[in-house]
Amino acid sequence: MDVNEKLAIVKRNTQEILVESELKEVLKKKSPVVYIGTSITGSPHIGYFVWATKLADFVRAGFKAKILLADVHGALDKTPWDLLEKRYEYYSIVIPALFEAIGADVSKIEIVKGSDVQLKKDYVWDLYRMSTFVSVHDATRSASEVVKQTESPKLSGLLYPLMQALDEEYLGVDVQYGGIDQRKILVLAREVLPKIGYKSRVEVMTPLIPGLSAGGKMSSSEKHSKVDVRDDEKTVNDKLNAAFCEVGKVENNGVLAFCKYVILVHKGDLSQPFIVDRPAKFGGALEFRTYEELESAYLSQKVHPMDLKKAVAREVNALLEPIRKKLKGKEKLVREAYPDEGNV
Amino acid sequence: MDVNEKLAIVKRNTQEILVESELKEVLKKKSPVVYIGTSITGSPHIGYFVWATKLADFVRAGFKAKILLADVHGALDKTPWDLLEKRYEYYSIVIPALFEAIGADVSKIEIVKGSDVQLKKDYVWDLYRMSTFVSVHDATRSASEVVKQTESPKLSGLLYPLMQALDEEYLGVDVQYGGIDQRKILVLAREVLPKIGYKSRVEVMTPLIPGLSAGGKMSSSEKHSKVDVRDDEKTVNDKLNAAFCEVGKVENNGVLAFCKYVILVHKGDLSQPFIVDRPAKFGGALEFRTYEELESAYLSQKVHPMDLKKAVAREVNALLEPIRKKLKGKEKLVREAYPDEGNV
Repeated sequence: MDVNEKLAIVKRNTQEILVESELKEVLKKKSPVVYIGTSITGSPHIGYFVWATKLADFVRAGFKAKILLADVHGALDKTPWDLLEKRYEYYSIVIPALFEAIGADVSKIEIVKGSDVQLKKDYVWDLYRMSTFVSVHDATRSASEVVKQTESPKLSGLLYPLMQALDEEYLGVDVQYGGIDQRKILVLAREVLPKIGYKSRVEVMTPLIPGLSAGGKMSSSEKHSKVDVRDDEKTVNDKLNAAFCEVGKVENNGVLAFCKYVILVHKGDLSQPFIVDRPAKFGGALEFRTYEELESAYLSQKVHPMDLKKAVAREVNALLEPIRKKLKGKEKLVREAYPDEGNV
Repeated sequence: MDVNEKLAIVKRNTQEILVESELKEVLKKKSPVVYIGTSITGSPHIGYFVWATKLADFVRAGFKAKILLADVHGALDKTPWDLLEKRYEYYSIVIPALFEAIGADVSKIEIVKGSDVQLKKDYVWDLYRMSTFVSVHDATRSASEVVKQTESPKLSGLLYPLMQALDEEYLGVDVQYGGIDQRKILVLAREVLPKIGYKSRVEVMTPLIPGLSAGGKMSSSEKHSKVDVRDDEKTVNDKLNAAFCEVGKVENNGVLAFCKYVILVHKGDLSQPFIVDRPAKFGGALEFRTYEELESAYLSQKVHPMDLKKAVAREVNALLEPIRKKLKGKEKLVREAYPDEGNV
């Protein structure tokens, strides 16, 4: 695979790259490293497949990938400190299972625990150093779209972006990848690392996908907007069935977005079609090999929302199967990690 | 020495204690611990004798004393990171010499380097925890009289007070002692330690003494307001001679304040008089055993500013003598620690 082919894979479905010329240089390296951090906050949902799918692209393009299970960041963003270790345990079961589900080469993916890095002497020294170069104003601004906003913001929310910047250095990565909501933090990272003597990294950003309910992104903290990875088959079917999915419209269509960023990518890489069953009287099953084909069929109303939802529910259930298996027998852990759910 | 006697020694020349009932309990302990932190920022001046004298009081009252040479705090408050180690080296020569100069029992005084404590795993974990309980607003407010204020305040200035609070726990102290300018930080410390599971400490505060020039406190960063511990005999005499010291007035009188908080305490403990020479035609030498006697003589103009200044200059030079000796041969270190002075 030459650099341009690698670039094409890394670029697909991204929204912004800072900056592409540097990314090209990175792609020439023998074994470049990319990382994404995920805060141990809410409960992972199927939106996580979006970034898992993108990370698998990086692996396919020759990258070694690191996933930072950011426990400290989770607590800095209001996960109760006393639940942190259980949440971490839960994430460290679910996240690798996500990658198995999409058939990624897990030998190229390393899980790193945030607190294993972020309590080290050198790291903390650098964090102190960095704090003398970043204004309260800039730290506040950079965190504004990521850290939960409250009336009386805590100091922790300002440490959050600085640590995310420093993680790039301490994980030894060439590229950080994140959602476009991370943009201000990633820009801060590029600005601030050179001030303490380190090089800026390439930042790759993907769009946020709409939630399943109307409006807003798919978010751990909005229960109805998402399918939790723990949802059983019936719940998945019910949630998809109730999803906001306007006839012939692509905007704010979380169902279609999931096809674009996950299902069709995944199917395409496996050279398998995405099959949408329709009642025989409407013409029977359709096969799609690219998202563009699907979108065009949906726009022209050859594919009805109800048929699409059923097809997507089937794929989601298939993706969740390996995760459900890994979570068998972990009910106690789940209760301890999420004591407020009450219904697990 | 009973608890009331100990209390009297600890209380003398203080401005506020939070809270006295707790201090009494602490004084019943076999070997209570007090600490003061001093940031490695400017160059130590004779104002440092004020807190050294107070710390010697604590030692006399049965305390073990710790002095935190706060290198990280210095950097968080704008000491250049590349000078920090040299500044620390310099402070660690000067500060113990201050205590020798006032005849304190140095066997009871331990010097602790800030970065030896503040990079430890548990400390940092607690700092992260603490940051989730302290609002940006409260951190800003608490640091406002201590950290140098700028138009674009840095995040470091907000970490400063949290770390000062946490130092109480990690130094294992019963009491923190500081100038009244530290009040908001010390109040924050009392509020925030219990939130992360530690007990509040007693906070003892002394007034700030006026500088030698008119107005303002004696400060490392205001060159003319202070006598640097490196000043030679002639410079000390000249600075005292030029000091603001109004006839018969106690207000804003840094010369008289130095008598109150250092010279008369020191002389009193040694059972020696403070001698003010006057020309024979004005009545010759006067001896004072308490500050009150001196103040009353000054108010009634029996002691003229010029006579007082000469007497104080003599005492200051005597106090600086052991420090000068310790700094013999350290000219290179001084140049490296203070490269901008240019005149050393």
